[in-house]
Amino acid sequence: MKFAVGVEYDGSCYHGWQRQKNTPQTVQEKLESALSVLASSPVSVVCAGRTDAGVHALEQVVHFETSKQRELHQWVFGTNANLPDDIRVVWIKPVTEDFHARFSAAARYYRYEILNRWVKSALSRHHVTTIFNPLDENLMQKGANYLLGTHDFTSFRAQACQAKSPVKHIHSIVIKRIDDKIIIDIIANAFLHHMVRNIVGTLLPVGTGERPPEFVHHALKAKDRRQAGVTALPNGLYFKGVYYPEAFGLDNLEAFSPFSDAIEKKQS
Amino acid sequence: MKFAVGVEYDGSCYHGWQRQKNTPQTVQEKLESALSVLASSPVSVVCAGRTDAGVHALEQVVHFETSKQRELHQWVFGTNANLPDDIRVVWIKPVTEDFHARFSAAARYYRYEILNRWVKSALSRHHVTTIFNPLDENLMQKGANYLLGTHDFTSFRAQACQAKSPVKHIHSIVIKRIDDKIIIDIIANAFLHHMVRNIVGTLLPVGTGERPPEFVHHALKAKDRRQAGVTALPNGLYFKGVYYPEAFGLDNLEAFSPFSDAIEKKQS
Repeated sequence: MKFAVGVEYDGSCYHGWQRQKNTPQTVQEKLESALSVLASSPVSVVCAGRTDAGVHALEQVVHFETSKQRELHQWVFGTNANLPDDIRVVWIKPVTEDFHARFSAAARYYRYEILNRWVKSALSRHHVTTIFNPLDENLMQKGANYLLGTHDFTSFRAQACQAKSPVKHIHSIVIKRIDDKIIIDIIANAFLHHMVRNIVGTLLPVGTGERPPEFVHHALKAKDRRQAGVTALPNGLYFKGVYYPEAFGLDNLEAFSPFSDAIEKKQS
Repeated sequence: MKFAVGVEYDGSCYHGWQRQKNTPQTVQEKLESALSVLASSPVSVVCAGRTDAGVHALEQVVHFETSKQRELHQWVFGTNANLPDDIRVVWIKPVTEDFHARFSAAARYYRYEILNRWVKSALSRHHVTTIFNPLDENLMQKGANYLLGTHDFTSFRAQACQAKSPVKHIHSIVIKRIDDKIIIDIIANAFLHHMVRNIVGTLLPVGTGERPPEFVHHALKAKDRRQAGVTALPNGLYFKGVYYPEAFGLDNLEAFSPFSDAIEKKQS
């Protein structure tokens, strides 16, 4: 049996998603250990998109295989009982053999949250990046619009990136302000390593007025990492969800609803 | 010189607001220690409303007196440099001698956040109370409406409450759902000990359908703590702000804006 799993996690205390030799403190390690208890045998999971140290997930999607028979709610409650409280399995669904959390994904989306005020937050201290200078979200949106569509995103790619091609397709970038928070939602078919954080780091000087919106266009066209902005901090970044083709039956996940427009566009 | 201070804190790691003999782990203790460094002499603070262990504040207001001369931004940055990162001073303003954080307050508001889904949250684990059974926020609002106005709130008062009178005036209770979150905003002239948590605990069985909305009315009329619901957990509770008469010059704080209607009504 193959299962898809929706996972929420607070990345603050982890060395990122991916299992590593020298530390048990990765999300993958914790999740595999918990699922292995329920499956009564070692379980490996494959995720839709790896996240770096300090990056969170509202809805990471993974798949795993097992021969163990259990009710779905037993998988959820049992796995959570074996997980630390900063990682939660939110749902588990059986999927067909051809489903692959990574390769079946048609689009992924990320959210980046900025607190735009002169003092850091006590309550959200691990969950937002604070920018002390006033940001103009309309200028940031103008700059971001240059990135829409299919482009070579070399300028926004980390040196360590293992992707075969730097060409990706950004479906939408929506930047909105809610009081002193600025929320950046990005949907793309796939992302390069550090791509969201490098995009945010390029939009920041546009938001402060230090650079014009065209700076983003020049950075993109240069295909040179040095022409774009810095890598924004990980703690404001959330893996927000994945879109899979309808046939897999995962299309009615709650998290998708805010982006139904963009997704419909993609499907048509 | 007298100053009013706006303070945000994450109550998760504290034994509540109030200074205690046997532990340094209170918000008041941390704030007084930090302000004392800046003032170069011992500082005492008085808050608008004490909070219990695990309860948070989006905007607690306190006052303190000092003879030390400093720029306002120095007070803010300097105090924050001496505070743990789960307590932040957000603003400091000079006030007239007759200002008193507690006695000058005309109204206080609290927010209670419920996550209404079958699995707890990894990201908000210390900042919401999770209710696994589906809640109907419209039924809860119906029940809550019985509490509006001036009443004897004995049924919602903790045994340890030190208030002189159980009669308080609730200006507004607004209950709204945002996806799987239910947010309860309550504004009153003042609150009894545990009053918000006891109100929430009484609204919960109404939301699940276990009790009709009239249950709240019966509980109120009974003037008997045993006739109302349980005390809801502290981790979903936020001290959200204080309203002071305009003359004190604290009326344009950002946090007040969502409730301007209720406040205008009170002023007229």
